[in-house]
Amino acid sequence: MATIKDVAKLAEVSVATVSRVINKSPKASKAAITAVTQAMKTLGYRPNANARALVSQSTNTIGVLVGDVSDPFFGAMIKSIDNIARQHNKHLLIGNGYHNADSERDVIELLINSRCDTLIIHSKSLSNDELIAYAQEVPGMVLINRLIPEIADRCIALDNHRGSYLATELLIKHGHQHIGYICSNHDIEDTTQRKQGYLDALQAHQLTAPQSYIEYGTPDEDGGEVAMTNLLAKNQPITAIAAYNDYMAAGCLSVLEGNGLTVPNQMSLIGFDDGLIAKYLHPKLTTVRYPIQIMAEQATQLAFQLATAAKQPILDTTQPDSSITHMFVPTLVKRLSVMTPQ
Amino acid sequence: MATIKDVAKLAEVSVATVSRVINKSPKASKAAITAVTQAMKTLGYRPNANARALVSQSTNTIGVLVGDVSDPFFGAMIKSIDNIARQHNKHLLIGNGYHNADSERDVIELLINSRCDTLIIHSKSLSNDELIAYAQEVPGMVLINRLIPEIADRCIALDNHRGSYLATELLIKHGHQHIGYICSNHDIEDTTQRKQGYLDALQAHQLTAPQSYIEYGTPDEDGGEVAMTNLLAKNQPITAIAAYNDYMAAGCLSVLEGNGLTVPNQMSLIGFDDGLIAKYLHPKLTTVRYPIQIMAEQATQLAFQLATAAKQPILDTTQPDSSITHMFVPTLVKRLSVMTPQ
Repeated sequence: MATIKDVAKLAEVSVATVSRVINKSPKASKAAITAVTQAMKTLGYRPNANARALVSQSTNTIGVLVGDVSDPFFGAMIKSIDNIARQHNKHLLIGNGYHNADSERDVIELLINSRCDTLIIHSKSLSNDELIAYAQEVPGMVLINRLIPEIADRCIALDNHRGSYLATELLIKHGHQHIGYICSNHDIEDTTQRKQGYLDALQAHQLTAPQSYIEYGTPDEDGGEVAMTNLLAKNQPITAIAAYNDYMAAGCLSVLEGNGLTVPNQMSLIGFDDGLIAKYLHPKLTTVRYPIQIMAEQATQLAFQLATAAKQPILDTTQPDSSITHMFVPTLVKRLSVMTPQ
Repeated sequence: MATIKDVAKLAEVSVATVSRVINKSPKASKAAITAVTQAMKTLGYRPNANARALVSQSTNTIGVLVGDVSDPFFGAMIKSIDNIARQHNKHLLIGNGYHNADSERDVIELLINSRCDTLIIHSKSLSNDELIAYAQEVPGMVLINRLIPEIADRCIALDNHRGSYLATELLIKHGHQHIGYICSNHDIEDTTQRKQGYLDALQAHQLTAPQSYIEYGTPDEDGGEVAMTNLLAKNQPITAIAAYNDYMAAGCLSVLEGNGLTVPNQMSLIGFDDGLIAKYLHPKLTTVRYPIQIMAEQATQLAFQLATAAKQPILDTTQPDSSITHMFVPTLVKRLSVMTPQ
């Protein structure tokens, strides 16, 4: 394999000049660029991205931690990050954390050790303290779907509480008084916040939900089926259900259908996320929109700003960018799964 | 930031010894490992993955080119690759090619320049010649969902023709004689192969389809809607439809529903892929299963074998691994969208 020395020899320039051309230094002359480019082509020499990263102490790679890339929610998030990254001529290094602390830590360590100076982190299992320490180490790190008060200006989050509140209130406004909740059994803050939004909306309208109105399962279709089956078995006078997410709502739907209960005529149902499947369900699912695309775009822009500012300490970085929204608000998407109780 | 020299000084060993510990060389003594690890911890020193990659001329990173990571098909593919990668303590560098030749080339160049010695490539737009050249340059490169005869042992592909043949034959066996085809308008080999499978199945059963039975659209839900609308407008005596993929089938479904035609009672419908949405459609979609998970696993295992063999030329690599399937066969998934014509 040709080396940088071979290129320098053929181009009749110094190794330093070849390096300048490769690294697109403004000091490289036009003649040098032509000679070196031609020599590289002749020899089939590939400038080594690792070597360039060593020199610049950074890479043209953005590190991304997601829960599970096979979940379309994270697919949509990654695509938005990639759209912004391509505009900056950067590429993605992606790791799955599977909402597990050890895996999340492993991925972040890999990304930092790979000298990604820009990180978009979706961590649900690491402690605030650990994430704060990483944020201090990497100036271009931004958290998505998480709010840590000490580094709130490095976080892009969603008001989960408000989303669930809106969903429950929609059911109440349709006249439902006995509203069940299909809750995730994952111990992450989204679970607590969404459940509390449901409870607070009931309370604000002088309604109550006994513990028996709430059932738990894994935050997927199977979990929704288990929880809905348990809820039905308890024979409560429920006429509407708010679900933790669209997948659990899909599980509810199939159990209700299997038990001869029509949605929305005999049971109203509302999801959360407005993910890929919501509009394919039958009836099309009324749900709460999680604006992950715009959130991911803003997180990426913020991360670039922070990474760039860290390299140019002469800039005044004390002024936060007021065009960045740090706390997004979910909105209702009204489809066909909610109606007035018959 | 602490350097390797600082670590060597504090640990009272040579820089070479620190390097041996970082690179897990068997030559490092137990005492050296303890001293260096302690010094690295004290100084907050991070061994630089780029530096290590330079030394070893490879990284612990697998390069992956997909069409679009936000499509659950590619999400499932990436997850399978990641599962195998984690067993080998490797991580993924992922790029989107969007089925565009320039983008696909950019991503492959980045992956090679980043010294990924293992590549899983899903390329639909680059020429055979260009991919063969890349495969020659990178011994650990494997193509997925593509068959290039000259490097067939580096390819993991699906028999698209057979999938469409099976789908069409299922409709014929249910008694349908007038079968429409909703075709993709993307000029990739999958399109040609699947359409030909449909035509060949008809011919094998002495049936014909006039050109007017085939309509084209983008291979997504919108494209399915456009194609189905055009097909209906032509008022053909069609009683069943085979679609290029599940998304186009979903588009057909909504147009049929909107026009008061019930599936399967008034129109049978079969998809292709058995992707995430197939079972959420109403009725649940009968389709052809694309075994992307197992294909991606085998592609990754094959890529590791090839990359490892290339580093150990002493091994006999002339014997292909007979446990690797290079051409996968799709299977039918019978759900509720196909029945005998009424």
